[in-house]
Amino acid sequence: MLKKYLLAPGPTPVPPEVLLAMAQPIIHHRTPQFEAVFAEVQAGLQRLFQTREDVLILASSGTGAMEAAVINTTSPGDRVLVVNGGKFGERWGKIAAAYGLTVSELKVEWGRAVEPEAVARALREHPDTRLVLVQATETSTTVLHPVDAIARLTRASDTLLVVDGITAVGVLDLPMDALGIDVLITGSQKALMLPPGLAFLALSERAWRANASAKTPRFYFDLKRERDNQRQHTTAWTPAISLVSGTHAALRLMFAEGLEAVFARHARLARATRAAAQALGLRLVAPECPSPATTGIYLPEGVPGKIVGYLRDKVGITFAGGQGHLKGKIVRVAHLGYIGTFDVVTAIAALEMGLAAYGHSVAFGTGVGAAEAVLMDGMPPVGAV
Amino acid sequence: MLKKYLLAPGPTPVPPEVLLAMAQPIIHHRTPQFEAVFAEVQAGLQRLFQTREDVLILASSGTGAMEAAVINTTSPGDRVLVVNGGKFGERWGKIAAAYGLTVSELKVEWGRAVEPEAVARALREHPDTRLVLVQATETSTTVLHPVDAIARLTRASDTLLVVDGITAVGVLDLPMDALGIDVLITGSQKALMLPPGLAFLALSERAWRANASAKTPRFYFDLKRERDNQRQHTTAWTPAISLVSGTHAALRLMFAEGLEAVFARHARLARATRAAAQALGLRLVAPECPSPATTGIYLPEGVPGKIVGYLRDKVGITFAGGQGHLKGKIVRVAHLGYIGTFDVVTAIAALEMGLAAYGHSVAFGTGVGAAEAVLMDGMPPVGAV
Repeated sequence: MLKKYLLAPGPTPVPPEVLLAMAQPIIHHRTPQFEAVFAEVQAGLQRLFQTREDVLILASSGTGAMEAAVINTTSPGDRVLVVNGGKFGERWGKIAAAYGLTVSELKVEWGRAVEPEAVARALREHPDTRLVLVQATETSTTVLHPVDAIARLTRASDTLLVVDGITAVGVLDLPMDALGIDVLITGSQKALMLPPGLAFLALSERAWRANASAKTPRFYFDLKRERDNQRQHTTAWTPAISLVSGTHAALRLMFAEGLEAVFARHARLARATRAAAQALGLRLVAPECPSPATTGIYLPEGVPGKIVGYLRDKVGITFAGGQGHLKGKIVRVAHLGYIGTFDVVTAIAALEMGLAAYGHSVAFGTGVGAAEAVLMDGMPPVGAV
Repeated sequence: MLKKYLLAPGPTPVPPEVLLAMAQPIIHHRTPQFEAVFAEVQAGLQRLFQTREDVLILASSGTGAMEAAVINTTSPGDRVLVVNGGKFGERWGKIAAAYGLTVSELKVEWGRAVEPEAVARALREHPDTRLVLVQATETSTTVLHPVDAIARLTRASDTLLVVDGITAVGVLDLPMDALGIDVLITGSQKALMLPPGLAFLALSERAWRANASAKTPRFYFDLKRERDNQRQHTTAWTPAISLVSGTHAALRLMFAEGLEAVFARHARLARATRAAAQALGLRLVAPECPSPATTGIYLPEGVPGKIVGYLRDKVGITFAGGQGHLKGKIVRVAHLGYIGTFDVVTAIAALEMGLAAYGHSVAFGTGVGAAEAVLMDGMPPVGAV
């Protein structure tokens, strides 16, 4: 018997309430019934993004929304600044290059966050930069980038700040309007606790102004057309109906928990995971600027990268391995979305037992105990004894 | 967010494969389609019971099958011997008394198993005893009774051995025919990983002979009529169709794992739970004859019984509390059915954190670590590194 535990940075587990909502019979999307659900989802997404702007719903993966953000705010030849500190930063550059934009790349050592001063320098060097393209959390290196500090730079300039918040929105406090983010993006299969298939993005007023003169070619991802349609509570193209129903259920769960509590939970689960790794004498990939969504942990000497496949196929625990030059060297333990105290306990116990299976000397319970000590912060009071 | 973990001795968690099988559209029960499923379920149940006799399927809880066993093998005034070492032993006496049988009760101290010699003595005292009524595992006290030793006594006499295997069949090796059990009973919501609603029982050849002259009144639970119908792959009364489909899926899962592996898993999870309790300095309810289905653990001084409600309602962990005079004094951690390594890890971490929440001094990870050391036995080999 192999019980399955999905502890990767996306897709993430889907709550039963959401699965059941998506198992309802399909309704037609050109009906008042669907439009009512859609309108509530739109309002919920604005609350989640902490924005007064329209949050558009796309039937695509998060990458589709990244592409939409770039092509709806630029014209061929425009210069963009890509913060590249991992696989997803690299993807920004590939998208921009595919559409003939001029790419300045700010390389960041894997496991480190970008220095805001480096961004400032790059913008001074090229004041004509149209976009800064950055991840809020770079999942490949489990790093948290300082979006707030970068936003302070772009707010004061004509450069737009485009933030890939795919593993950040709903994980940490990222108030779009208050920070002055110009485009904020997320995907369904992360903190939103949905299957993959939807992406969400919102544009600031000045991003919409840029859109009016943006000449980069687009059709499916024409956001102006989407906004015109979505203001009528429908989409330009056929929506992924059951995923929209699922989003309705998922947002309800998130608001029932409360966004502050959701952020605090993610922070606590991340702290517990880091404490466990450190108690086990394991080295973190991003010790100084760790993402609250996923924790990257170096495998100890002598333990091969195939431990990830072993835990997944033989033990039922799906972690992520490393990407690029971290392949085979790290394990990434995710703790975003429908993840709670005992998922972290399970993750750490599996890591302890998996390392022991590969001959690494482990004092069983050391990591779990360190995690529990942190997770106690999330235990509700017992009341009068 | 409250993720729910069902770690009580029934109902137990239902695997997704079984939930999906039960979510299929209802088919009619007087059809070749249903009869084909029913026939496969019957064959699977014979394999599970380790018997060549018919295993009958009743739309009832386990208690219904307990009643059916008694009333189909006795006549009013007949003497039965009840092994009463807990709430379920007590229930045998109540059923027998309700139908005017003469009840000899063998009281057993809670937390202890019945002495086979005490059964032998009672049978010598009343050689006219028609039935010995016993639990294989007494869930209220988390005790394992020595069914094999009792069967050696009844096999050599005219007394029939009726075994409530509700939390034993599919948990431990209880080969009905090889041991000479005369009636073996189980319920759906235990090791069979189904929702409640079905009971299963089989009668030995000599139990069927007793049935021929048994005068105790019965209608719904007339097992002769059931056998006549079920030999045609249908039931006397309307079957619980979706639960039968679920049983089909559940048996398939059990046989895919292999019965030996299923028994070994339950034994290992129980050993791990006991090791954890002992590492935490907690006292077991049944240290000498522990059930492999459920582990009873005394709460330490100063921790009130309401910890069970706290863990259930505030933390999401459903254990069982104590019954009768153990109410408020113990917690029962179940590990039967669709339960694996990380459920035990979760259970022990929740116990550690719950005890700490009530002010008990806990070295976090001590219990989990002791459990992990045992659970390593269940880790598959890593293969060539």
